[in-house]
Formats: sequence, C-alpha cells, structure tokens
Amino acid sequence: MSDPAAFGRIALIGIGLIGSSIAHATRRAGLAMHIAGYSRSPESRAAAARIGFCDSLHDDMATCVAEADIVILCLPIGALGPAAAAIAPALKPGAILTDVGSVKMAVIRDIGPHVPDGIHFVPGHPIAGTENSGPESGFATLFDNRWCILTPPPGTDAEAVARLSAFWTALGSKVDIMEPRHHDMVLAITSHLPHLIAYNIVGTAADLEDVTQSEVIKYSAGGFRDFTRIAASDPTMWRDVFLNNREAVLEMLQRFTEDLTALQRAIRWGDGDSLYTLFDRTRTIRRSIIEAGQESAAPNFGRDKSA
Amino acid sequence: MSDPAAFGRIALIGIGLIGSSIAHATRRAGLAMHIAGYSRSPESRAAAARIGFCDSLHDDMATCVAEADIVILCLPIGALGPAAAAIAPALKPGAILTDVGSVKMAVIRDIGPHVPDGIHFVPGHPIAGTENSGPESGFATLFDNRWCILTPPPGTDAEAVARLSAFWTALGSKVDIMEPRHHDMVLAITSHLPHLIAYNIVGTAADLEDVTQSEVIKYSAGGFRDFTRIAASDPTMWRDVFLNNREAVLEMLQRFTEDLTALQRAIRWGDGDSLYTLFDRTRTIRRSIIEAGQESAAPNFGRDKSA
Repeated sequence: MSDPAAFGRIALIGIGLIGSSIAHATRRAGLAMHIAGYSRSPESRAAAARIGFCDSLHDDMATCVAEADIVILCLPIGALGPAAAAIAPALKPGAILTDVGSVKMAVIRDIGPHVPDGIHFVPGHPIAGTENSGPESGFATLFDNRWCILTPPPGTDAEAVARLSAFWTALGSKVDIMEPRHHDMVLAITSHLPHLIAYNIVGTAADLEDVTQSEVIKYSAGGFRDFTRIAASDPTMWRDVFLNNREAVLEMLQRFTEDLTALQRAIRWGDGDSLYTLFDRTRTIRRSIIEAGQESAAPNFGRDKSA
Repeated sequence: MSDPAAFGRIALIGIGLIGSSIAHATRRAGLAMHIAGYSRSPESRAAAARIGFCDSLHDDMATCVAEADIVILCLPIGALGPAAAAIAPALKPGAILTDVGSVKMAVIRDIGPHVPDGIHFVPGHPIAGTENSGPESGFATLFDNRWCILTPPPGTDAEAVARLSAFWTALGSKVDIMEPRHHDMVLAITSHLPHLIAYNIVGTAADLEDVTQSEVIKYSAGGFRDFTRIAASDPTMWRDVFLNNREAVLEMLQRFTEDLTALQRAIRWGDGDSLYTLFDRTRTIRRSIIEAGQESAAPNFGRDKSA
C-alpha cells in the first residue's frame, strides 16, 4: 500500500463517539481494508453491528488487535493502562499504537511501560467531539477542520509519526505536534476548565431552593443553556480527565477564581469601568475563533434555524 | 382597532438588537399602523432607514413618543431613568409604557417616579437575544417560542397588562407574570451569572503567559468556544445589568464559588466518586431544556451543519 495514510487493518479499542467516528471517517477516506472494533458492552457491539461501521466486532481486546497495523485506544483515560497491558502480547510487530485521550502526560505514564519493543507508540488527541456518547453518536465529519495533537515521546520513530499524521489528515483533521506537558496545560484552559465550570454552574442551578428547576429550564435562553451542552458530556470520560490532569487544571482554576474574585469585588463596589473594560475586550477572541474556522458565525451558534 | 395586541402607533426608544427585532416582529404580525424609532446615533438611524423597519426615525425622544399608544424603552438599564424623565411630558394620556430590561427591581426604581398619572407602566423582559448588537442584528423571529416576563407593580391597570401580554404573544413569545424581586433572582442564575462566568473565563484565557492566544483560538473546539458566544454580548448592557442586580448576582456567585471549591477539593484529593456524581446528574437538565423547546437537540448546537 503506497498511501502513507492507509493501513491494512485498523483496530479500534472502544467504539463510542470517537471510536465510531474514526471508523466512519476511515471508511469515507478509504483508509483501511478491515476495521476491527472492540467493546466490552454487548449493547454497543449490537449497535455497531446494526450501523455497520466495523468489519469485525470483538468482545476480547487481544483478538481485536491481532494482525492490526494500527491500534487506536478510544477508552476513558483510566482504562488505558489496563487495556495496554491486555493487548501488549497480541500486538503485531511494527504496528502503531495510539490513543485519543484528552490528557497526555498521564497517558504516557500509564501506557508507556506496557509498549513492547518494535511497537511505535504515538499518543494523540483529536480536539473534536459532541455532547453525545456511544456508538450511535459517531459521524464521518466529526474531525473535519479540527486539530489533532500528537505528542510523541523523544526517540519515537519518525516514520510512524508521519504515517499517523497522514492518517489524521486523511480523516479531515489538521495535525500539530506538541510536548505532552504543554498539551496538558493548553487543554486545561481550552477544554478541561470550561467543562468543569459548566458542570459546576449546572449543578449550582439544580440545587437552588428559591428558584425552581422548572424556572431554570424555561428561562435558560438567557444564557444558561449554553453551559448545559458540555455539561451533558460523558461523566466517566470527564472524571478521568480531572483525576489525570490535576496540576494543570488546579492551576487554571486558581487563575479563574482570582479573576472571578476581582469581578465580584467590582460588582460589590459598583466599579462599572472595570466591568466594561473586561466585557469589551472579550469579543475579540470570539471573532478570531470564527476567523480560524473553529466556530460558526451565525447568531446563537446557528441553533435557531429561522434566524 | 379590535385586536388587543394591535396599536396605532408604537414608539421604540432604542433600535438595537431588541428594538429592531420588535419592529420586525411587529411588522410580521401587522400590529401597528406606524412604528417610530429613536436613536441618538446617526449611524444607527441611517442603518435603520436603510433596512426600513421603522416608519419614522427620530433623534429626539419626546418627538418619537408623541401620539404613541405604546412606548417601549429598549436601552441599557442605566439609561432608562433619564429616558423616562425626558419622555414623561410628551407621553399620550392612556399610553402603555414598558421596557425590555434584564433587571426589574432597578427598572421600577428608576422609571417609576417619572411615570405621569394616566400612563400605564408595565415593566417587561423578553428572554431572547443573540451575541450581536445594533440595528442590523435584529430579526423577526427572535422572540418565537421564547418567554417574555412581565412584572407589573401592584395596582397596575389589568387591561394594560392584558394588552401588553397579547402584544408579546403576537410577537411570538410565551408570557409569564412574575414578582420583580423573584424575576431578578431567577435571571441572576439563568442569565446574569452565566454571562459573568463566560466573560471571566475568556478574560482568564486571554491573560495566560504559558499558553498563547493563538493556541486558545486553535483548540477552542475542546469546549472553550461555547463560552465565547455570550462573552461577545454588548458590554454596556451587561455592565448595567451587574451594577443593577448586585445582591442577586452576588448571592448566586457565592453559591457557585462554594460549589466550585468543593469540586476543586475533589480534584486535589482524587475523589472520583464526587466528580462522577455531579457529572452524571447534570445531563438531565439539558434534556429537559430541549424537551421544553428552549434548545436545539442537534449535537454541538447544530453549529456543524455537516454533522
């Protein structure tokens, strides 16, 4: 096979939102002769069989990865170490082993020790997703125009990195290479802290005594509903993110809280100038995100189609 | 005119997002013989003239409200008191005076003293908007299926409340009547705190030294971009909201911070069960918001059309 993005056999350990979307996008780009999928859940395997995005489905990881040229671990971070241990003896010599985890230092810590000689371990993280989970939520365009960050440890085979990079490019992504520690800090502010804040405010709203749940729901178009999307994300995945990117998240949280305390003080003392100054400068970032093709320019995210 | 929702002449003091959308929706529903619009800005009047959503445009408030059967103040909250004082002598006896401000106690405090005898003052608040501002951002469907809350003070003429309620219904809204104090508390959690949090995290991200602005923008699809929408809202309007709903916002902020501190502690001590419990229960609220017709069920708000 001369296409560096193509593989004979791809193994997906985990076929939820990301795993199933990789399968759909692989099919769309014609990158594999065979897509093997593993799930421990009979319901997930049945859903995958019904939708048909895998050529074979497995309830055993070792069987799934046998003869695979690339193995992609698409599990919550806490499950990656045990999965790597389970598949290690069955990996085909020369295969690429990668993952899609949202934290990279912990992934290297947990998977690294299990990687046999002759296997090319290249950690990866596609910055793409939706609030939905499971094999029925995947779709072929999920990675289009989104970034995928690879964090190869020093000494990683350059050809393996190039092949994985070509693969993600063929799935629709733009690819960046980054140090794992820097990745974890960047994602702490662009993804982990936003999720934490969103989960938190939705929880706060749910616990009020003087404002009813029904009022929160009815009047959510005032802004609250924007937060509920990412607060509907998979709880296991996000628990594992916070348990495994503790230092970077706590550091960003500390800065966020400091800034919020300053805002609180400005409100308490009626300091309108400070409020205006902050509120005026935050618009620039959204404009840049839209210009970078990472956001819709339509009002309300375009969610009101009639608008 | 037998339609209780219809008025001979409507005066809009302020023709930004909300004022212009009221004009468009009024036209769509055929609710007025004449729509008069005021703006102090020549650029805004020129834009309104070009788009054509008003029958007459004014640089003087008193002229705008003369002979109007209903006057709708669509200005930032801090501008409402002076506006009420300026128009009071010119109001037509029997006219309805209303507003669209996001805080109701302060609006009643600021407008109330200026309302002449024989004028029916019925404060109102449509829970609808976008992140865009100005006369070019308005559209006729903005209020469709959104709630509009009226907070008439005790003793307000029931017929005036009924007519304003019919008017908002004809604009596409669903109407609720509420105590002003309760309104301000409900909106503090469903709208004001979400905006504050969003402005804050966007500011925190902009101030980092170790993560570049360009990285925040590139990888914003990880969750951060969701916050930038409401953090792009009109800064003057939002400054005035926080200056005028201080107690309720500070109370909600206090609760939010307490909850966030508990989450921070759970992360620091590796308490995965607490994290999972919160992350698991927040999904229910989003489902309810979608079922209530206040949110899109499409993944990523439907912003990725290809999805």
